[in-house]
Formats: sequence, structure tokens, C-alpha cells
Amino acid sequence: MAGPMLDVRTLKGFRDQLPPEMGPRRAMLQAIEAVFRRHGFAPIDTPALEYAEILTGKYGEEGDKLLYQFEDNGGRKVAMRYDLTVPLARFVAQHQALLPSPFRRYHIGPVWRADKPQRGRFREFVQCDADLCGHNSALADAEVLVVGLEVLQALQVDGARIHVNHRGVLTALIAAAGVDPAAAPVAIRAIDKLDKIGPDGVVAELERTLACSPATAREVLSVFAEASDLASLEAVLVRAGVDAEVRAASVGRLRAVFELVAAAGHGDRLFFDASIARGLDYYTGIIYETRLTDPKVAAIGAVMSGGRYDDLIGSFGKTQVPAVGISLGLDRLQAALRELGLCGDGRFGADAFVVAIDEADAVAAMALATDLRRAGVSAELSTRGGKIGKQLESGDKRGCRVALLVGGNERARGEVAIKDLASGGQQVVSLSQAAETVAGLLRV
Amino acid sequence: MAGPMLDVRTLKGFRDQLPPEMGPRRAMLQAIEAVFRRHGFAPIDTPALEYAEILTGKYGEEGDKLLYQFEDNGGRKVAMRYDLTVPLARFVAQHQALLPSPFRRYHIGPVWRADKPQRGRFREFVQCDADLCGHNSALADAEVLVVGLEVLQALQVDGARIHVNHRGVLTALIAAAGVDPAAAPVAIRAIDKLDKIGPDGVVAELERTLACSPATAREVLSVFAEASDLASLEAVLVRAGVDAEVRAASVGRLRAVFELVAAAGHGDRLFFDASIARGLDYYTGIIYETRLTDPKVAAIGAVMSGGRYDDLIGSFGKTQVPAVGISLGLDRLQAALRELGLCGDGRFGADAFVVAIDEADAVAAMALATDLRRAGVSAELSTRGGKIGKQLESGDKRGCRVALLVGGNERARGEVAIKDLASGGQQVVSLSQAAETVAGLLRV
Repeated sequence: MAGPMLDVRTLKGFRDQLPPEMGPRRAMLQAIEAVFRRHGFAPIDTPALEYAEILTGKYGEEGDKLLYQFEDNGGRKVAMRYDLTVPLARFVAQHQALLPSPFRRYHIGPVWRADKPQRGRFREFVQCDADLCGHNSALADAEVLVVGLEVLQALQVDGARIHVNHRGVLTALIAAAGVDPAAAPVAIRAIDKLDKIGPDGVVAELERTLACSPATAREVLSVFAEASDLASLEAVLVRAGVDAEVRAASVGRLRAVFELVAAAGHGDRLFFDASIARGLDYYTGIIYETRLTDPKVAAIGAVMSGGRYDDLIGSFGKTQVPAVGISLGLDRLQAALRELGLCGDGRFGADAFVVAIDEADAVAAMALATDLRRAGVSAELSTRGGKIGKQLESGDKRGCRVALLVGGNERARGEVAIKDLASGGQQVVSLSQAAETVAGLLRV
Repeated sequence: MAGPMLDVRTLKGFRDQLPPEMGPRRAMLQAIEAVFRRHGFAPIDTPALEYAEILTGKYGEEGDKLLYQFEDNGGRKVAMRYDLTVPLARFVAQHQALLPSPFRRYHIGPVWRADKPQRGRFREFVQCDADLCGHNSALADAEVLVVGLEVLQALQVDGARIHVNHRGVLTALIAAAGVDPAAAPVAIRAIDKLDKIGPDGVVAELERTLACSPATAREVLSVFAEASDLASLEAVLVRAGVDAEVRAASVGRLRAVFELVAAAGHGDRLFFDASIARGLDYYTGIIYETRLTDPKVAAIGAVMSGGRYDDLIGSFGKTQVPAVGISLGLDRLQAALRELGLCGDGRFGADAFVVAIDEADAVAAMALATDLRRAGVSAELSTRGGKIGKQLESGDKRGCRVALLVGGNERARGEVAIKDLASGGQQVVSLSQAAETVAGLLRV
């Protein structure tokens, strides 16, 4: 094992999770899973590695560049999971005969993107996805939005706004501005950047990518600005002569979804926003992104987003399976909770710290630690030996609340000293009563 | 997205987890975590990718070949996590100033090995590790063994035997057979294969790798066979003139650990076994492997193993930090539970299935589903629409237990029909009583 000194570090864009971070993270994951299950979503998992051809071409040109791709020892071209949606599509196509319809699944796991690391953006991060595959209906769209909103509520993330749009609305608005509907995807990519590059930037990009006049480019933007809520959106589309059927499938669908989400008690969270475009190529219907309104966390970005993708699963198999999903970014959610002071106090020691006063007391100390654990009290048996003061200090340092000293005269009398590490108060009880006494102290 | 038809499949040695598997798996993970926490172990996580130089040279020559290694887009040599122990060592060396001593951590996550896939052996599998870093003591060794034994007990894996040995015992026995102690690692690798290649195979390998006589090779084996329990081990070592100090540090340590584990109620699970060698290069003290004795699951192999590695963390930093750990293989454990019939009934639907009879009932159905969920009942809102019979069938198929039909005359009267999907029995209750009624039905 000897050798030149290593540079001991993690890769750029990758992080270790220490206990003061990872403890609250585990608690968040449990809360998220409980909401998913309460809404009838069942867990699945897929491999970290897929055949590269499964993943390439699904995330647009920029996405492809961010894939971790390599050749494995058997010469296969493989890639690391970039999101949980494309693997789900492959999964549904592959196992369709074994799955019920609709199929509600959740999936929690890391994904990898060779993105430029920056504040809050990492190359490895955890997504928590809930998707409903099988039906294209307002009920399906609403169920998925509701599960996401319930997660935010369970995590006490207040002041989240879900900005909602529909790919059909985008296409209709672009047509209303006089642009060839075939060019809609190109125009949508430009509009998606409104937040980042501003209106002038979007106009310039539209001119360039659509090869259109400045007037047409500005008309696109102005049509989008006018459609500030569902009523004015409808007015814009009627004026432009968009088919009633097209309006029903887009504006009408959004209305129905808004009403259903309101029935679940979350109506005040949804906002129509014509500028939401979602960069990913695979969306076909409703799309949404979350904004945190609290100024302390507004910069964290979208903590939850998703939409409907009715053609993606079909691209892997013989059957079209319409689907809609929502994806929560655990790392961003945790960053928000941390800023909001909702992320624990950093202590991670066991509640009870059991110290053998002498080596000959070790077996009795183990028996006592076992009693405590059987009574549901988390307990550490001190493994250090040596001076009692040093041992107690180490238990205190990591946040243990109570120390039990096994040995000396007390042990000879069948007793044990229990020390409150915060107050310093001490009491002596019989060994057989110790677990119950500690459980009582911790409940206070 | 159009293109040539893809081969829709997972990579060899990699698997999807479907809900009937993944549901029990999540339950197992929760049980395992609860035990880890009750014993004072705190969660951490480390990246899936590390600089390759962190991982290479730690697992022996064969291990190095099984690493998934590649160059990332920035030209860095990276490798996927092969186990959770070497990343822990890197983690402790890197963050030592932030960690308490001793540091008890658990880590649950996938690892990747480009091994030859075979029955029960995969290229991606999940390890659940608990390690105690900071002290080399019998108490530390025992705490780690106890946490593993408590996990097996929590999962109801009966009849597990932990075969325990000590690297110091191996070295002493090899010296007792007249082999140069410097050649011990080579001899240990041969003895480690006893289970696989049998005594003749081991003798042949010892002759070859030690360049020794057949008599010496057979003497090595006979010394190991004689040391069938701690008492006869001690006798062999005394006869061979092994130092009292060496015997105390190895045999004496094992005696102390056995006594401590017995005090935690698991004495009947530990067995000294001189033939346990553990292939990995980094072990320095106690080592152990689990055997399942139930013939139904004996072939599954070691579900839990580990040992003491006092030099590994020091190889990454300036400070030696002694450490001991235990690693549970989730996939093998689940395979065992499945064989033993302890892995659930395969149903994964929500308990309640809410159906809107007509499209106009959808909003009321969402409100009812919300009531159920708030009352802690898992509920799916049917998203299919169309014939009620078809909808009920789909709820029944995925294991929902109760269906609620929202609409018609009942809804006009403020009521809802509740149908028991197993018995077919039906009752009508007021909408405001529905959640309570269903919760009651499910408790039966």
C-alpha cells in the first residue's frame, strides 16, 4: 500500500456528504417517499450505466455533450444515467407486459452530467421522480402536479410557485405570430432562454435561428407577453384564428388541470406562464417549473419541474404509451431548506453514550448498551478506553445527550450512574431500570 | 426522435428493479438504516466517481482489473466506486478535522465491478456498510459485529453463522508451519481459496506460489485443520513457540470480542474459522464472513463480511486512523429473504382506488382522494376515464383493496359508494365520512 503521496480529493463537481448534511437528507428522502407512496406511486430502480444508444439523442445536442460516455472492458459503448426519465421510458418499453396500466412509479437516485460546475450546480445530483404512464388525461396531469406540491408541503417549502405552460400553447402562439409552425421547436428553444438572456437576446436569437425579420421576432415576443393569463391567452389564439379543437387540447386542458389541482387544495400555487418552454426535446403537452419566491432562496433555481412526454416510450418500443412526470432536485431542495433554517442542528451522535469505567466492565457495558437499543434508544458504546473524562468529552462533542458510566461501586451494587451531558446532573439507578430511565429522560 | 429501432435492453450484469422487488427492498433498507442509527452510526455519501488513482492498488491485482475506469471529458482518469471502504478511507483522510473520534458512519449505495456475470453475481450491486474509525479495541470490533448481527435479526435471517478469524492468527499459523512470515500474504491468498478449490488445490497453489516442498504445503494445511477452535489454536501456537504478546493480540483479542458479542445476545452466531482469509489486501486484524446454514439459501454466499484495516486511512493522509467495518450485500440478502418467503406478496397498488363516474365528477373525485391521503390512506385517482368496469378491473389488478365511486345519485346526495375489491361488498357513506370509513376497513 506504500507509494507516492496521493492527492486526496474529490473530482470537480462531485461532493462528499458529511453526517450533518446527510442526516437531514435522509429525513427529506423519507418524507418524499412517504408522499409518493400515499399517492399510489411504486418504487423502481434502473442501472447507473445504460447502452449509450439508449441515452444519446434524447436530450438535444447540448445534452448529448454532457453525457458521461465510455467504452467498457467488453468494448460496449456505455453512458451514465443523465436523468431518470429516459431510463423509465426504456424500462416501460422493455417490461410492458409485467406492468399495470396506468403505471405510477417513483424513482430516487443520482444522475450524472458533465456540466460546468458552478455554485449550486454539480456533476452528480439526486433526482426524485414520480411519473404516471398509460393515460393522457387532465386527471393524470393533475395527479402528478399534486404529488409534487404535496412533497413541497411535507418539506415545509413555503412560497413555491409552479409556472405552467403547454407545448401546444407554445406552438399555437408561435403560429399566431406568423411563424411557420414547423419552426416552432427552434423558436421555443430561443424563448426558453428569456430568463437568461432577456428580451433583446431572444429577439436576436429568433432572427438568427428562424432567419426572420426583426419585426416577426418582436411579434413573437409581443404575442407571448400579451398571453399573461389563461383568459388573454385564449383571446390571442381566437384572434389569430387558432382552431377550437387545438385550443381545447391546450388552453382547455390547462384549465381542467388548474381546477383539479385546486380541488386538492393547491390552486394558489399554479400560475400560467407562456414563457416556460423546458429545453428538453421530448415534451409534448403540459410543462412546468417551480420558482421559490422567498428572496433568501429565489436564486436556487427550479427545484421541481417536468411535463408530459407522449412519444418518448413509443420511441423505444412498438407501443405508444403516453406519460407525464415530475422531477424534484434533492440537492436544490436541500439548499433551500438549509437557507430557510429547516435542515437540522448538525448533531449526529447517538442519544446515549455508554462508558465502561474499567476494562473489566466492558462486558457489562455491552449488555447495558444492548438493553438501551432494545428499548429503542440509540446508543454508542465508548470504544476508546482510557481516562473517563476524555471519553465523556468525546460523547458530548458529537451530541450525545446522556452518558452511562458502568463500573466501580455502582456496578458492584447492581447500579449505574446516568449523567445528563447538557446539565451535568447525575443520578444512580439500578441496571435493570437504566433503559427505561434513559428513555424517559430523552422524551422530555 | 425517429430513427432505427433500438435494441431495448439493460447491460449484461445490470438489472432493473420492478416494484414487486423494489418495494421489499425499500423496506429492507429502512430496517437496516434503523439498526445502524440505533447503534450510533451516522450516514454519509461519497461520489460514484473518484480519481482512478484513489481506487487502484487497493483491491489487489484482480480487483484492479474489475474497476470501471475511463477518461472523462476533461481528460481526468476516473473510476467508478468498487466498494464503500476505500472511499471511506479517502473521506476520513480528507475531512478528518471535521469528524469526531471515534467516527461511526454508515453508507448505503451501489458499487460497480466489471466481474463475469453469473447467477447471483452482478456488475452493479448495493452495499450497506457500517464502520468505526478511530480506535483499535475489542469493543470497536464487537460493536461492528453486533450491528451486523442485529441487522440480520431485524430482517429475520435465521441460521446465519459468522466465521471469524484474525490476520495475526493467519500469520502466526503460517509461521508455525515453518513458512517465512514474509510470505504470509501469498500463503493467505491460497488458503482463502479452500472453499473453492479444495485442499489438494490449495496444496498445489502453495507449492507453486511459495516455491516450497509438498511436505511444507501439507504442513500449512494440517496446522490450519488442527486449529479448529480457539483453545486448540492457542495450543498450536504455544507448541510452535509463538510469543505470548502475539497470541494476546490475535487469539486474546478474538476471545474478548466473542465475549462482548455474547453479552449483546449473539454469542451463538460466532465461530472461529482459521480458513477465513478475505482476499482484500487491506485487512490487518479481525476478519469475518457470513454463512447461511438453511440449505435453501446456503448457495447464496457471504451476505455480510468485513474486518479491521488499520493502515488504509493512513495511506491517504498523514495520520494513521485504525478502523473496523462490516459490509452487507443487499442483493444477496434480498435473494435469501426471497427464497425464505420473507419478501412480500408482490402487490404494489395504493390501498384505495378513486373513480370518477363521469368527467364532471373528476373535481369531486380529486377532493375525495385528497381527503383519503390526508387521513394517511394511500390513494390512486383513476386517470383512465371510460367504462367503470374497466377502471375497477385496473385497480383490482394492481392490488388496490377498496374502490370509491364518485358520481351519480350518490354524489347528488353528498354520498359515495365504497366497494371492497376482494369481497365485492359495497356500502354507501356520506362523502365527509368516507376517509374515516376506508381507514377503518383497511385496519381490519
